[in-house]
Amino acid sequence: MPIVTIQQFPRSVEQKRELARRITQAFAEVYGAEEASVQVFFSEVEGENWAKGGVMGCDRPADPKA
Amino acid sequence: MPIVTIQQFPRSVEQKRELARRITQAFAEVYGAEEASVQVFFSEVEGENWAKGGVMGCDRPADPKA
Amino acid sequence: MPIVTIQQFPRSVEQKRELARRITQAFAEVYGAEEASVQVFFSEVEGENWAKGGVMGCDRPADPKA
Amino acid sequence: MPIVTIQQFPRSVEQKRELARRITQAFAEVYGAEEASVQVFFSEVEGENWAKGGVMGCDRPADPKA
Amino acid sequence: MPIVTIQQFPRSVEQKRELARRITQAFAEVYGAEEASVQVFFSEVEGENWAKGGVMGCDRPADPKA
Amino acid sequence: MPIVTIQQFPRSVEQKRELARRITQAFAEVYGAEEASVQVFFSEVEGENWAKGGVMGCDRPADPKA
Repeated sequence: MPIVTIQQFPRSVEQKRELARRITQAFAEVYGAEEASVQVFFSEVEGENWAKGGVMGCDRPADPKA
Repeated sequence: MPIVTIQQFPRSVEQKRELARRITQAFAEVYGAEEASVQVFFSEVEGENWAKGGVMGCDRPADPKA
Repeated sequence: MPIVTIQQFPRSVEQKRELARRITQAFAEVYGAEEASVQVFFSEVEGENWAKGGVMGCDRPADPKA
Repeated sequence: MPIVTIQQFPRSVEQKRELARRITQAFAEVYGAEEASVQVFFSEVEGENWAKGGVMGCDRPADPKA
Repeated sequence: MPIVTIQQFPRSVEQKRELARRITQAFAEVYGAEEASVQVFFSEVEGENWAKGGVMGCDRPADPKA
Repeated sequence: MPIVTIQQFPRSVEQKRELARRITQAFAEVYGAEEASVQVFFSEVEGENWAKGGVMGCDRPADPKA
């Protein structure tokens, strides 16, 4: 524990590496957790496996801020 | 919110599109939720990553109704 | 299969019963799935266990459409 | 999207508020994501619903760093 | 890793303790995993938060084998 | 029910088959559950989608016991 699971669009390893580093640090600073106890899982989802408002991601214009 | 995650066998985009549309509509009609607040995630599973009754999906005859 | 997990604010049993009924029916009609194979799980989340945009649900005005 | 689900021991609202704020900020800074698109769910687990190394949490001495 | 999440009806701590012990042992014997790396989470669901075949658990007769 | 979801590194079908068999058997023996009611899902994660202690799996030496 803690186990962090992130559902997101695909991102580069560089971005995931930096995000995991910051999230882990936040647990250490805010909770006093040992960094080694924090695990982060990235579950990447393509546009044909996600819908918002009933519209599939693959049927929308790409949104870099989503 | 609401976040809907569906574990299922692979399906065509047409089927997922229609299912996501109906599920989103159900939240709007039954809960009064705004459609834009509903997100649906499809997590597709192949037969070598799923077992029922201790028998792997890839060791069973295909079942179109499963 | 299919397994449907719904993360949502608490709702009445009547609303969940009706939603589960409609979602199950959607799987039967769109996928041709057997109704008995569809399971729906409701995972209800209170405002102190959910944040959007970095703001906890318990720090926002209640939104019946969320 | 992104949807962040955290499995953890129970924490105070103050700690969760601060953690959610920092995680949301990390998505904005590292991915360029819009803050409003980030949702964080806390799924709190008691010691009788978690085991590590085959030993239940409720059978271990409390560990503030876990 | 591995992280095991179990969605089930409520059970006694004795039953969960024994199940977690056996599952952890199975990972050690079948995968050669270190026992300390295996975490098991129990996510217990009441009958008003689960449906099968479109019928809520709380609307069915109790089934000790479910 | 019960639904078992396993987050793990990729393993061979032989290993997953044997693990699913044992886990299902454990539910039958410890809970008295019917074997047919137990479903096991394997969610396999590569090293570029997982971090521990803030370090990505792909940045560590491989660990067969992890």
